[in-house]
Amino acid sequence: MAGSSFGVLFRVHTAGESHGPANVVIVDGVPAGLPLSEEDLRPDLARRRPGQSALVTQRDEADEPEILSGVFEGRTTGTPIAVLVRNRDSRSRDYEELREKYRPGHADFGFDARFGFRDHRGGGRSSARETVARVCAGAIARKLLASEGVRILGWVRQVGEIEARIENPASVTLEQVEASPVRCPDPEAAVRMVELIEAVRRDRDSIGGVAELVATGVPPGWGEPVFDKLKADLGKALFSLPAVLGVEYGAGFAAARSRGSENNDPFVRGRDGGIRTEGNRHGGMLGGISSGMPILLRCALKPTSSLPRPQRTVTRSGEATTVETRGRHDPCVLPRFVPMGEAMVAVVLADHWLRARASRL
Amino acid sequence: MAGSSFGVLFRVHTAGESHGPANVVIVDGVPAGLPLSEEDLRPDLARRRPGQSALVTQRDEADEPEILSGVFEGRTTGTPIAVLVRNRDSRSRDYEELREKYRPGHADFGFDARFGFRDHRGGGRSSARETVARVCAGAIARKLLASEGVRILGWVRQVGEIEARIENPASVTLEQVEASPVRCPDPEAAVRMVELIEAVRRDRDSIGGVAELVATGVPPGWGEPVFDKLKADLGKALFSLPAVLGVEYGAGFAAARSRGSENNDPFVRGRDGGIRTEGNRHGGMLGGISSGMPILLRCALKPTSSLPRPQRTVTRSGEATTVETRGRHDPCVLPRFVPMGEAMVAVVLADHWLRARASRL
Amino acid sequence: MAGSSFGVLFRVHTAGESHGPANVVIVDGVPAGLPLSEEDLRPDLARRRPGQSALVTQRDEADEPEILSGVFEGRTTGTPIAVLVRNRDSRSRDYEELREKYRPGHADFGFDARFGFRDHRGGGRSSARETVARVCAGAIARKLLASEGVRILGWVRQVGEIEARIENPASVTLEQVEASPVRCPDPEAAVRMVELIEAVRRDRDSIGGVAELVATGVPPGWGEPVFDKLKADLGKALFSLPAVLGVEYGAGFAAARSRGSENNDPFVRGRDGGIRTEGNRHGGMLGGISSGMPILLRCALKPTSSLPRPQRTVTRSGEATTVETRGRHDPCVLPRFVPMGEAMVAVVLADHWLRARASRL
Amino acid sequence: MAGSSFGVLFRVHTAGESHGPANVVIVDGVPAGLPLSEEDLRPDLARRRPGQSALVTQRDEADEPEILSGVFEGRTTGTPIAVLVRNRDSRSRDYEELREKYRPGHADFGFDARFGFRDHRGGGRSSARETVARVCAGAIARKLLASEGVRILGWVRQVGEIEARIENPASVTLEQVEASPVRCPDPEAAVRMVELIEAVRRDRDSIGGVAELVATGVPPGWGEPVFDKLKADLGKALFSLPAVLGVEYGAGFAAARSRGSENNDPFVRGRDGGIRTEGNRHGGMLGGISSGMPILLRCALKPTSSLPRPQRTVTRSGEATTVETRGRHDPCVLPRFVPMGEAMVAVVLADHWLRARASRL
Repeated sequence: MAGSSFGVLFRVHTAGESHGPANVVIVDGVPAGLPLSEEDLRPDLARRRPGQSALVTQRDEADEPEILSGVFEGRTTGTPIAVLVRNRDSRSRDYEELREKYRPGHADFGFDARFGFRDHRGGGRSSARETVARVCAGAIARKLLASEGVRILGWVRQVGEIEARIENPASVTLEQVEASPVRCPDPEAAVRMVELIEAVRRDRDSIGGVAELVATGVPPGWGEPVFDKLKADLGKALFSLPAVLGVEYGAGFAAARSRGSENNDPFVRGRDGGIRTEGNRHGGMLGGISSGMPILLRCALKPTSSLPRPQRTVTRSGEATTVETRGRHDPCVLPRFVPMGEAMVAVVLADHWLRARASRL
Repeated sequence: MAGSSFGVLFRVHTAGESHGPANVVIVDGVPAGLPLSEEDLRPDLARRRPGQSALVTQRDEADEPEILSGVFEGRTTGTPIAVLVRNRDSRSRDYEELREKYRPGHADFGFDARFGFRDHRGGGRSSARETVARVCAGAIARKLLASEGVRILGWVRQVGEIEARIENPASVTLEQVEASPVRCPDPEAAVRMVELIEAVRRDRDSIGGVAELVATGVPPGWGEPVFDKLKADLGKALFSLPAVLGVEYGAGFAAARSRGSENNDPFVRGRDGGIRTEGNRHGGMLGGISSGMPILLRCALKPTSSLPRPQRTVTRSGEATTVETRGRHDPCVLPRFVPMGEAMVAVVLADHWLRARASRL
Repeated sequence: MAGSSFGVLFRVHTAGESHGPANVVIVDGVPAGLPLSEEDLRPDLARRRPGQSALVTQRDEADEPEILSGVFEGRTTGTPIAVLVRNRDSRSRDYEELREKYRPGHADFGFDARFGFRDHRGGGRSSARETVARVCAGAIARKLLASEGVRILGWVRQVGEIEARIENPASVTLEQVEASPVRCPDPEAAVRMVELIEAVRRDRDSIGGVAELVATGVPPGWGEPVFDKLKADLGKALFSLPAVLGVEYGAGFAAARSRGSENNDPFVRGRDGGIRTEGNRHGGMLGGISSGMPILLRCALKPTSSLPRPQRTVTRSGEATTVETRGRHDPCVLPRFVPMGEAMVAVVLADHWLRARASRL
Repeated sequence: MAGSSFGVLFRVHTAGESHGPANVVIVDGVPAGLPLSEEDLRPDLARRRPGQSALVTQRDEADEPEILSGVFEGRTTGTPIAVLVRNRDSRSRDYEELREKYRPGHADFGFDARFGFRDHRGGGRSSARETVARVCAGAIARKLLASEGVRILGWVRQVGEIEARIENPASVTLEQVEASPVRCPDPEAAVRMVELIEAVRRDRDSIGGVAELVATGVPPGWGEPVFDKLKADLGKALFSLPAVLGVEYGAGFAAARSRGSENNDPFVRGRDGGIRTEGNRHGGMLGGISSGMPILLRCALKPTSSLPRPQRTVTRSGEATTVETRGRHDPCVLPRFVPMGEAMVAVVLADHWLRARASRL
C-alpha cells in the first residue's frame, strides 16, 4: 500500500500503467516562486524516451507533458504540481499471451501472487513506462536544486565487459555524455559499446551494464543521522528503478578490500579556506551526511529481461511453455537509464535540501 | 527531520546517543498476540555487543533491555512496544579532543555543518551505538516473521582479500556462522580471517569486508510495485547502517557483464507443484516483489574509520592537526555487523509482510 | 508541505486549482479486485456539482471524471487509481480585482503571507473546487466499504435558525435526503429551509447551517488507541473541508452539561446475541474506537464568505477598499456540503478498515 | 497501526500503558540549539498530575521526567529527544474484575474487538495516563514556540451548566487561570464550579464541561491549503484527547445561525500598519491558514465515564452485570484537561511553524 509515494518534504506521488490512458505525477512540497513550465520537463523526457536512437526500443511515444496545477503565471505557487503524460503508442494486442504466461526476469508472477491478477499489457504498473512520471518529478527537482548550485549528471560507465575510462567524474559535461547515443563520455569506449549493443541486438539478446552518477555543489550537512542517511535514501531511490541489482558509493565494493589507513580521506583546508577532503573514496557522504565533496555512485543493471527469442517459463497454472517478446525491445537499457537515475538522485537531494533547512533555529 | 523512523506498518522509532543516558526504541504496529519478552531480545543483543570476542571493540556494555510497554502477560497487545537499553560504559573523558577535531571518515564535520554543533562524545547520534535500538526492533521482527516461516541469517563473506566459499547460501546454519568469532561459515576462510584481523589490529589499522545475508521462507508477493520495491526498502535499510558503501542482490554487479539469455532465471514447476525459478541470479526479487526464492544480498563495508594511530585532519576552524582514537577499537566491524544487517532485513520483511496482507479484498 | 495527502493505508493525494486546467486525485492503497468504473463516481459528483439546483452556485461544470490508472477490465488492480476532472467553466476575468484585494472570510491574506503570492482566480487552491477530487476518492472508498456493509449518509440538519426534526438518524434514507434540493430529510423543515435560502439570496447575503452524518454497519474495533483515534481522524477530515467551524459526536456539546450517570450508555446484550449499548450518546466511538453502534456526527458551517454585495477590506498594501463577489454564488453551502462530508467520512473509514485488518496475527 | 505518532516535521511518538513500567515519548525534529532541560517539563507535568488538588483523582504520581537523548550541554542537538516517565502508583489489583467486564463509556469493548484481548489494568493504553507523554512533548513545543513569540493558554470555560464570563480571551493570564484549582479565570464562576464538582463527587457522579484555548502571537501563513489545514490538524489533535466530544473555532456552532454579512470579519489596517481583522469570529484561521489573529477554540468534554457507583454493563461473554470504579476517581476532568489541550495545541503549532518555513525559496 502507498508504495507509489516518495520523499518527506519534496513529495512525489505517481500513478499509471504501461498501456492505460496516461501516467500522472503529483509533486507536493515545491516551494513557491520557482519559474517552471513544460519546457523544463521536455529535455529529460526526450532523453528517457523510447525511439530516441537506434540503440533503444522503438516504441513511439511523444511523451508530451501537461502541467495541470501548482504553476501560475510561470511560477510555482507552493501547491501540488500535477503533470499528465498520455500514453499514445499502446498496442495492447501484442501482449495477449502474457495474460497467462510469466516472463522470466519480470514481476508478473509476483503481481499475481500479491494481487490475484494483473494488468498484463506490457507489464502494467511494473513496466519501466512508469519512470516517465519520475523523470517529470526529477526535472522539477533538478530546477529547484539548480537555484542552489547543485548539478546532477549521469553516464554509462560500463556495458558488458567494456568499461569507460573516466579520470575525474566531477568534471564530465553533459555535452560529453550526449555526444554518443550510448551516453558514455569516453569516446573510444562509446564506440565499442555501440558496436556491442548492436551485436547483442542481432543476437536477439540483451546486455547489462553500469551507470555512474555524480552530484556536484551539494553543501555539507544534507542527510539525516540514522535511517534517512543520504546514502540510504539514494540507495532506496536507485534500487526502486527497474533492473538495478547493485549500488555503490565512492570506493564501493573495492573498499571491502582496503585498510582504514588507506581508505580514510583526510580533512584538509581547501584553497578557498573551506574544509574539504583529500580524495573522495567516501563518495561525498560521511555518516550518511554530505561532506561537501561530489556525491559519486554507480548502479549495476542486469540485462533487459524481455528478449525477442523463446525463453522457457510456465503458465499461471504451472504448465511449461515458452515466451518471446515481440516487436519493440531494448537490447541495453543503460542509455535510457541515465535520465531515470538522474531524476531519482535529484528527487532525493531536493528532499534533503528542504529537510536540512528545518534543522536549526 | 524525522530521520529516526523506519517502516510503514511495522514502524520503528529510535533515540539515543553513544554517551547519553540510554538508547530507546519504540516499535509500533506489531500485531497483538505475539509471545514476547526480554529473553527474545538478548541473543541478538549479545551478538551485536562490544567485547564479545578478542576481535571486536572492548567497550563493556551489558546491553540489558527493558520492555516498557506493549506486552501484557507475555504477549504483545497491539500497542507500541518501547524498549530501553541504558548506556553503562560511557567514558566521556576519552573524547574531549573530538569537540574540536574532525575524525576522518566520520560524520563529525557534516553534523557541525548541519546542526551548528554536536554531541562529540563517541560520535553522539552518529555512533554505531544507536544500532542497539535497531537490534531490539529486529529481534521483534524476527520473532514475528518466524511465525510465518521466514528465517534470516547473515555471515561474513569476505574480509580484505579473503573470500569464503559458500556453495549454497540458503542452507547455511546459525551454528556454522557462530562457530567462529568472525562469523564466517567457511571454517578454513574463518581461520584466515581471524589471523588477518589480528594482524591488522597489531598494525593499529582496520580492514573492510563483505557480509552476505539470506532470507528463506519469504512467499511470493511481498514488496510494492514502484518506489517501495522490496529491493528498494532493503537497500535503504542496509545503507542506513554505518560503513556500508555497497549493496547488491543475487548476481549483483556481475549481472552487468552478462547477457539476458544467461542471466534470466526460467520459471519452472517445482517438486511440490508450485512455481519457482531455475537458479537464483535474481536474488529472490523480480520487479521489486519477492519471487518465493531465497532473498540473497551482499553488503560491502569500508574499514573502520577510527584508528589507534595519528591521522591527518583539521579542527573546526580549519587548522591542520592529527587525531588518534584512544582505547577501544574495532579492527574489523564485519562480525558485529552481521546481527545489525539481519535486524534491518527483518524489519523490512516484517513491514512488507503486513503491507502485503492489505492488498486484496 | 505535503498538505495534500490524507490517510495511511487508503491514501489520497490531490492537486488542482479552481481555474487551472484540471483537478486530479491519486488514490493509493485500494485493494485489488474491487469492481470500479467512472459510473461509480458520477452520482456523488452530480450531488456536489454547482448548478444542480436553484439553491446553489450556477457555475456550470459537467465534472466528467476520467480514470487514468489502477483499473483493468473493470476491477481495481491494487495499484494507484488516478482520476482526472477537467475544469471547464473557468471565467478567470471575473477575478482580476482579487489579485490585489483580500476577500473577508477567505484564505487570500494567509496565502500571500505564506507563499508570497497566489493564484487569485477563484481562490486557486483554497477554492472549494478542490473538493471535486475528494468526492472522487470518497466514491471509491464508499464502494469499498459497501462490500463490508458500511453505509454513509449525510443531510442538512439546520439552516440558520431552522432545525430539522429527525427521530432516528440511523434510519434516514438517501431517498428522503434527495427528495428536497436542500437535502433535509424532514419535509416540513426542508420547505422552510428552501424559503430561507431564497430570501437570503434575494438579500445578497448567505446563511450558515449544520450538517449531520451517520455511518452504519461499522463493526467494533476500528480506530487507533492514541493519536489516530477514529474521532480524531474524522475530526481532521471534516475540519479540512471549507467553512467547517465546529464538529461534534453523539451528544456533543450537550454532553458538557450532563452527568456521567446519565451520559454513559450501558452495555447490553442485543437481540442477535451480540454486545451493544443502550442509547448512543457516545456517537458510535468509545476511546476513539468504534463500538459497533452507528457513528453519528454534526458539522457547523459558517455562512459563505463570498457575498454579492460590497464588503469592507484592504488591498495587499493595506489600503481600505471594498470587494464584491460577482456572478456565481452559493447563498448556502450546506446542500453541496453533504456529499463532501460523506466523502471524507468514507475516506477515513476505508483507511481505518484496512488498518484494523493488520492488528492481529 | 502506527497510531502513536503525530506530526510531520515536529514528530511525536509515544508508548506506554497505565500500569506498565513507564511512559515514553520520542520527539523528533526539534531544531538544534534550543535550551532544554527537565526543568522545562516539570511545570506542565505538575498541572496535569493526579493528586494536585482535592478536585481531581488522588492517584499519586510524581511524574518525574528523565531526558534520555537529544540534549547536550543544555541545548537540543537536532536529534530525537526521548523522555521517560516511570509509573509509580500502579495498584493493579484494583482492576482485576475489569479483565472480564466492559466499563460503560470506555474503550474496553473496542480493544477486545480489535486486538482479541487487552491490558485491562486501568485501561492500559486507552487510559488518560498516556497523556503524560503528550505533556512532555507539548512542553518542548511550547518552549520552541516561545522563541517565536507564540503563547498558548487554556482554561475551563464551563462545568455543567455553569459558564464563565470572559470578555477578551486573548488577554487572560496564566495567573488568573491558576488562581483556582478548577482553572477558571472568572473568579466568581470558579467558586461555583468548585462547589458543583464537590457536590458531584459526593453524589458519586461526574460532570462534563468546556475548555477554551487561545494561542496568541501566531503570525499569518501557518497551515496547509487542503487536508492539513491548521483547523484540521488542531481538530485531530484535540479529538485525540480522551473525553472530547466536540471542538469549535471562533464563533463555532453559533456561526451556523448567522448570515455572511454579520459573520465575516472585515480586513482592516491595524495601528501598527499591519493587516488584521475587525473582530475574530473566524477564530484566527481562514481557509485553514492562520490570519495573524489569536487562534481561539473550545472543546466539549463528556463527564468522566468511571463512576464510584454500580453501572449496568456486560461481561466479555455478554452476561449482564454491574461494574463500579473503586478508589481514585476524577469527578470532573476539566481542570486536568487544560494542560493536555495546551500540549496538543503546542505540538500542532510547532509542526506548522516548521512546515511554513519550508514554503518559499
